[in-house]
Amino acid sequence: MAVYTDISEVELEALLAAYDAGSLLSYKGIAEGSENSNYLLHTTKAAFILTLYERRVDKADLPFFLGLMEHLAEHGVSCPLPVRRRDGEVISEIAERPAALITFLEGMWLRRPAPQHCRQVGRAIAGLHLAAQGFALSRPNALALDGWRDLWRKAAPRADEVEPGLSEEVEADLATLGRAWPGDLPTGIIHADLFPDNVFFLGGEVSGIIDFYFACNDLLAYDVATCLNAWCFEKDGSYNLTKGTALLAGYQEIRPLEPAEIEALPLLARGSALRFMLTRLYDWLTIPDGALVNKRDPMEYVRRLRFHRQIRSSSEYGIGIT
Amino acid sequence: MAVYTDISEVELEALLAAYDAGSLLSYKGIAEGSENSNYLLHTTKAAFILTLYERRVDKADLPFFLGLMEHLAEHGVSCPLPVRRRDGEVISEIAERPAALITFLEGMWLRRPAPQHCRQVGRAIAGLHLAAQGFALSRPNALALDGWRDLWRKAAPRADEVEPGLSEEVEADLATLGRAWPGDLPTGIIHADLFPDNVFFLGGEVSGIIDFYFACNDLLAYDVATCLNAWCFEKDGSYNLTKGTALLAGYQEIRPLEPAEIEALPLLARGSALRFMLTRLYDWLTIPDGALVNKRDPMEYVRRLRFHRQIRSSSEYGIGIT
Repeated sequence: MAVYTDISEVELEALLAAYDAGSLLSYKGIAEGSENSNYLLHTTKAAFILTLYERRVDKADLPFFLGLMEHLAEHGVSCPLPVRRRDGEVISEIAERPAALITFLEGMWLRRPAPQHCRQVGRAIAGLHLAAQGFALSRPNALALDGWRDLWRKAAPRADEVEPGLSEEVEADLATLGRAWPGDLPTGIIHADLFPDNVFFLGGEVSGIIDFYFACNDLLAYDVATCLNAWCFEKDGSYNLTKGTALLAGYQEIRPLEPAEIEALPLLARGSALRFMLTRLYDWLTIPDGALVNKRDPMEYVRRLRFHRQIRSSSEYGIGIT
Repeated sequence: MAVYTDISEVELEALLAAYDAGSLLSYKGIAEGSENSNYLLHTTKAAFILTLYERRVDKADLPFFLGLMEHLAEHGVSCPLPVRRRDGEVISEIAERPAALITFLEGMWLRRPAPQHCRQVGRAIAGLHLAAQGFALSRPNALALDGWRDLWRKAAPRADEVEPGLSEEVEADLATLGRAWPGDLPTGIIHADLFPDNVFFLGGEVSGIIDFYFACNDLLAYDVATCLNAWCFEKDGSYNLTKGTALLAGYQEIRPLEPAEIEALPLLARGSALRFMLTRLYDWLTIPDGALVNKRDPMEYVRRLRFHRQIRSSSEYGIGIT
């Protein structure tokens, strides 16, 4: 939620000269995206987003991310389209950072999504899973089991500062998930970070999906599990069964889950909760107070973890309830 | 440079329903303005800025600020125009804060203004001074001599933490300025904060002046002195005579300064440098590290103060040099 890098109009006009995107009328740093700097541009042609990739993003991944957005947009997913320069490239450089100009999507992300929005999100994520089939590039999930273990190694010594006993809890989870993680479910490209601030709505319908910078190849049902974590819990930590039911039903309208995927949901949701808990915990312990990066409470995801641990059947998420 | 208050699309759509400004398409918190939260809105009609007034702004001053913008816009100054609601009001409320919807001005503020821009700014501030004549409301300058003394009383005990000896320096300045401050120069409404980030340019011309939240009644030449401080010093602290000459010449093209105003410039510039030094010093000492508010180095303005102290004649600023 910050602009890390300021740019001058001289630099920006020089960058725009490589595109056929009109002349610059205004640009404003916007308070969105937690990893990169984003500017909203108005030109004589249209509105655009210029994203400056800060050091958390590996430059080698940019062709995957931007190519995926282009592939998805071509296959009917409403997502930002990277604008090609006149020389055919999509990656530019400004202020010593790689940068991409992408189309601006109208729409608002919902601070308080309702069940009908969760159904739309379910449909949208399933649509994305199907549309991504056939995309030529692939990218392993850096935040899968091995990535969790790496993060945990760095965070473990101080985890009990956040809550006494947390260390023991996480060790047990990692052991369980390492043993039981499913290896034979349908895979494909997943968004991997589909939180409410990454989905725009307009007139009650999804108008756009943004922020593909965690997208990767992994279990499709793991993406659904992340959506349950991201959309179906209330501020007090309770699971909203109505929202979960709606989200799962929306997904299945477009891509029915296989029985093995349904059965794996509690484990996948637990893994997903652990993944977000670990990145939050790591940031919590390592980012100095007052840095521009948002620090979010890892305990919110510890509570989700505890919830998923005690699930006995996927029906408790609302699967198949209509 | 921050968005202090998040708003939901539900609140925002309810607010917009009071206006005839179209339906909401998108809104983004923008990283501009140091006192308030600002959102850039796209509606089916146009682009707008929604400003939420945070607690640093006195709600009782809003009719002055918004009325002034309306008056200036009506008198040919390119500045944002507050949009009236259907009930005729200009002040709304959202997220428990007073808020105003204003028109969006295209244009960019210049990170590295050149002399020709300084001339434009001189012309623009003179035009503003003339256009503001006849505005019915008035507002004393809360950051004039008495205000400086108040700030100093709070900051003085710790001023030497910033630089040893600073306390003694400032005491001497306050005494000199209190004794010699001119009482008989032309007065009127001044912008009082016309830094580069408050002036937009498009195609080499001023396309808009924004942020009237320090505007007040005071000596017109004091506003010119503030522009010298804001536009005509380089990053290394040196005074750029070419920029100063251009700014003063631009001003005088539209409103020639009286001999007494010219003579008073070194004192006014010294007072203005002290004013910005004091607010920075106060923030520096009181705002906790890591707060959202930008803390700027007071020493930058201590160096300006020292520069103005040794000026022997206004010609050293470039006045009358053509």
